[in-house]
Amino acid sequence: NVLRLGNVVPDFTADTTMGPIKWHEWIDGCWAILFSHPADFTPVCTTEIGRMSLKYQYLADKGVKVAALSCNELGEHQAWLDDVVAHCENKITVDFPIIADPTREIAVAYGMIDPELKDAEGLPLTCRSVFIVGPDKKLKLSLNYPASVGRNMDEIVRVVDALLLSAEKSVATPANWPNNHADQGMKGWVFLLPTVTKEDATAYFPEHKTCQVPSGKEYLRLTPVESAAVVPEASAAAE
Amino acid sequence: NVLRLGNVVPDFTADTTMGPIKWHEWIDGCWAILFSHPADFTPVCTTEIGRMSLKYQYLADKGVKVAALSCNELGEHQAWLDDVVAHCENKITVDFPIIADPTREIAVAYGMIDPELKDAEGLPLTCRSVFIVGPDKKLKLSLNYPASVGRNMDEIVRVVDALLLSAEKSVATPANWPNNHADQGMKGWVFLLPTVTKEDATAYFPEHKTCQVPSGKEYLRLTPVESAAVVPEASAAAE
Repeated sequence: NVLRLGNVVPDFTADTTMGPIKWHEWIDGCWAILFSHPADFTPVCTTEIGRMSLKYQYLADKGVKVAALSCNELGEHQAWLDDVVAHCENKITVDFPIIADPTREIAVAYGMIDPELKDAEGLPLTCRSVFIVGPDKKLKLSLNYPASVGRNMDEIVRVVDALLLSAEKSVATPANWPNNHADQGMKGWVFLLPTVTKEDATAYFPEHKTCQVPSGKEYLRLTPVESAAVVPEASAAAE
Repeated sequence: NVLRLGNVVPDFTADTTMGPIKWHEWIDGCWAILFSHPADFTPVCTTEIGRMSLKYQYLADKGVKVAALSCNELGEHQAWLDDVVAHCENKITVDFPIIADPTREIAVAYGMIDPELKDAEGLPLTCRSVFIVGPDKKLKLSLNYPASVGRNMDEIVRVVDALLLSAEKSVATPANWPNNHADQGMKGWVFLLPTVTKEDATAYFPEHKTCQVPSGKEYLRLTPVESAAVVPEASAAAE
């Protein structure tokens, strides 16, 4: 199975630590994050669930749903969560569901299986995948990290902020945003989409600045994020 | 085409801004990063090449090779690089090759095509993919960001450091490493692999600490990164 940006993500039903879930129905027009871990009762995964818990309220406040997944049984998930909370010095609560996928049905449908990773019975396990899904149920961004490398939940929050911003306004976020263009006095500014015409740029982004480059092309147009606007005619294109 | 963690990445020959390249031969037993951008002369891509240039020497010093790619012609790459350098206030040099893939042959083989993204002629473009390849030519980690969201080159450097560490020692990196476990006085410590036995943990990792959790399972074993060791018998497993 292949899952590419722009594809509608597969639907499924499953048991979770917060009750049964029907995935598409549960997304319900929101942004959603589905992230897999190799196995319960393993160290890196424990810290990942803990770190995501620290970010959960921020994401929920933005209307973003979160669900974790591994190939463990539901009972293992439930017992493991006590360890996760304890390892975080009992300072967190895990307020998002963890999906049980012991049949590997979802893992296979999403291509999350790591062929080099097996459990004690020789059954395949999931790698550290992240699927960020839009309200249209299409895949917007994906990550695949191996079992040995824990993900960076700050980066996941950063890309969610960027995805939401570019979905709402006619802008795209520079590399390392919001830590960009500080040297030029434009820290955190964002680019106008190339599809915004010169006339619309002037009308909709009165504060924007165009950076001059040797080609003479005027594509490096930056605006403060606070005054980012939506231009009805500007659709997504190469950015 | 599907490219999963653990797969040998497709070989190819191509023209680049630094001469012709034969991919597998060029990797030559090193770690390598192949990262695609949607198009030359577009703003986000300009900042990504600039930001990668700032990280390049650090990566090269660790023996990591870097190549960028888009579906533009070689001549466009070459002209665009003047803009990239100028936008970085002429403070950088771009010391890694940018691959020209106007036929989309490589983009298709690697599954980098974003079906929602087209150029002025209606031809498909690449999304912001990252493939981190090991010395065995197998895919170790991948990212797919949409055109509207610039990547974070600091995160790419972080995962390279984590991949190299876990390839060399019998450890795995916690979520957000090296910004982990600061509260518990173990900032930047790493986990012993679950496959390291209790006896080997004592012998090879004399400074390690085991965190107690309600399950009573002893899987949360942390060691300072400076004293991370390699245990011959410990192979990769769920972490």
